[in-house]
Amino acid sequence: MPGTDQMPPVNTGDDVGVPSGFVTYAGNAGIKDPSLDVSLLASERGCAAAGMFTRSLFAGPSVKLSRRHLDQGAPRAIVTVSKNANVATGSQGDKDAFELAQLAADVLGCAPEDVLVASTGVIGRAYPMDKIRSHFRSLAKPAVADFPSLARAIMTTDTFPKLASTRLGDVTITGVAKGSGMIEPDMATLLAYVATDASVTPDELAGAWARVVERTFNCLSIDTDTSTSDSALVLANAVAGPVAPGELERGLEAVCRSLTVQLASDGEGATKLLQVEVLGGADYAQAKRVAKSIVNSPLVKCAVHGADPNWGRVVMAIGKCSSDRDIDPEALTVSFNGMTVYPGPLVGEGLDRLAQLMSGETVVIKVDLALGAATATVWGCDLSSEYVHINADYTT
Amino acid sequence: MPGTDQMPPVNTGDDVGVPSGFVTYAGNAGIKDPSLDVSLLASERGCAAAGMFTRSLFAGPSVKLSRRHLDQGAPRAIVTVSKNANVATGSQGDKDAFELAQLAADVLGCAPEDVLVASTGVIGRAYPMDKIRSHFRSLAKPAVADFPSLARAIMTTDTFPKLASTRLGDVTITGVAKGSGMIEPDMATLLAYVATDASVTPDELAGAWARVVERTFNCLSIDTDTSTSDSALVLANAVAGPVAPGELERGLEAVCRSLTVQLASDGEGATKLLQVEVLGGADYAQAKRVAKSIVNSPLVKCAVHGADPNWGRVVMAIGKCSSDRDIDPEALTVSFNGMTVYPGPLVGEGLDRLAQLMSGETVVIKVDLALGAATATVWGCDLSSEYVHINADYTT
Repeated sequence: MPGTDQMPPVNTGDDVGVPSGFVTYAGNAGIKDPSLDVSLLASERGCAAAGMFTRSLFAGPSVKLSRRHLDQGAPRAIVTVSKNANVATGSQGDKDAFELAQLAADVLGCAPEDVLVASTGVIGRAYPMDKIRSHFRSLAKPAVADFPSLARAIMTTDTFPKLASTRLGDVTITGVAKGSGMIEPDMATLLAYVATDASVTPDELAGAWARVVERTFNCLSIDTDTSTSDSALVLANAVAGPVAPGELERGLEAVCRSLTVQLASDGEGATKLLQVEVLGGADYAQAKRVAKSIVNSPLVKCAVHGADPNWGRVVMAIGKCSSDRDIDPEALTVSFNGMTVYPGPLVGEGLDRLAQLMSGETVVIKVDLALGAATATVWGCDLSSEYVHINADYTT
Repeated sequence: MPGTDQMPPVNTGDDVGVPSGFVTYAGNAGIKDPSLDVSLLASERGCAAAGMFTRSLFAGPSVKLSRRHLDQGAPRAIVTVSKNANVATGSQGDKDAFELAQLAADVLGCAPEDVLVASTGVIGRAYPMDKIRSHFRSLAKPAVADFPSLARAIMTTDTFPKLASTRLGDVTITGVAKGSGMIEPDMATLLAYVATDASVTPDELAGAWARVVERTFNCLSIDTDTSTSDSALVLANAVAGPVAPGELERGLEAVCRSLTVQLASDGEGATKLLQVEVLGGADYAQAKRVAKSIVNSPLVKCAVHGADPNWGRVVMAIGKCSSDRDIDPEALTVSFNGMTVYPGPLVGEGLDRLAQLMSGETVVIKVDLALGAATATVWGCDLSSEYVHINADYTT
């Protein structure tokens, strides 16, 4: 897999490009408040499509229906309801998910099986189907592509919309994502949609998508909690023609990596982005396991919050990987923001300089296991009082 | 294994009993501040002994030395240094740990191999051996048994000392423990010492101790972080004669369960004790895995902090056990403090009453998986802003 230096440059925010042959819609059906809560992303023609979903035992009706529609054919649209996850809603939830696909299909002039469904928000409440029905029945087929509005329409507790795009010759790849809590994707992620006008076979797309998600969204952890609604979807409509398969994968990775970093920066209560790089692993799985143990440690996250270069906690978190008996405490090195802290000690002026560096918006912890050539990078954020405030009083 | 109703009653705090033939010492060697920081627990004669230790890759010199001394013979004493863990201190750390055993042995008039060593506190700093040496060389052999002082001397960020004892006829079982952060014991725990004057063979004691630790200290999780110094030790000196093996195990479990609940109540920043009981598991391992997933979920812990009966997060945490494909979302039930919330909905007056119940000091979440007869109980605490404050600025 490529390093960042081999990836194409990425635009974010309102500067993202628009892939040819896609349209979007974002509106308010009154699910919870007057903010955007229903949206469509649709291709004018059939697509190659791929998806990765939550492994939660309680995957919601949206996830189950989208899995089925991906298996059945060539979906060309995604309909999303935010502010209500439609999870733990019994058999009514399954019916509502299919009706949502049908309502979107009627607007777009396609079959319900061509529509993927995603949903995010509170668990355990049925959709207000009357509101959703009357909203969709009033809609005309969308004629514009406004990705920034689409990104806003899928938000729940996010504080900013996440967008990223890249260009590969005539081809554009544009993605949106949402999520700020209940995030440790497990073979899937939050909600993330990537649209591209590249031409690619469904099999090639599925392979590239699985590898890219493993390296990007699946390297993100805000709080170790796995959502019941995670869906990462890609649609490729072939309007702009082919690119080399390796090039497409690099483009997808660049877009998804940018979205992942944006998600980590906006973790619930986050004041700092935490990037953990593990080098010298025996294999990628080990490097990622160690990196995840560090990025998920509440004590490491608190130390990062306090700009405290507490390498003892990093060593503790590595020590938790108790099946990795090949790791030698005496051989490894740990650095914070480029300054080696273990083996140490780092004292005096150097320590002051490091505290200064760590008071910025990004903390990079780098660990060299000195075992092999595998590396892994994962992203998370600090643990702040604000995380507790946000989550101590959510439903009632 | 017995339920609580079959366990003998337990005394705590200053009311704990004193097993015959044991003495203690607690003093200050000036490790960090004027509080108690060195201590001894010793039997007048040889003991059956057993220990369970951290599985961290970076187990400290104290753990390594105690493992060796347990293998070699019949230890009769435990020496503890608090406020400094002697971890990640290189080969000097190993030498210092052995010298500590030697210094204690000289005071007690035994061989260094008869002494177990434990240590807790900051990681990565060498012991101040000058201070420790001069302190121990000034000591006379202890002549009294003061368990409350021993419990205070092993504390670090604990806010109160943890003590528990029980009586079985002529036999007394008395334990002390410490720990409030970096706590998810993994085949071991924090620091916990139990002394008893019961007569028991080393093999019987080792078997009972492993089972008791699995049901008590290993069912505790404050923050998913595993210490490098965890040690749970038991000494039995036979002064008061034998009890039935099953009875001794119940007595040990009663004492260790009380200590575990005390530790959970004093988790860093804790305002509430969180007890999670999983019933109807296919086997104990599954019931405990599900219970741990719930007690460790930051989102569940925040909801408990806010007295919010957010069962959606409990269902989410169960869903994270993605290997347990036999769990049926439709079949399980969830209650908070005795009131069923799933299947629900619980609304109106019932919801108000539950919010009232959850505003107390203990929240009990009970889940019935409806698969089999296995049950597991685990203990933790809520996640508060105070946890972040305590841990955002610890070393520097």
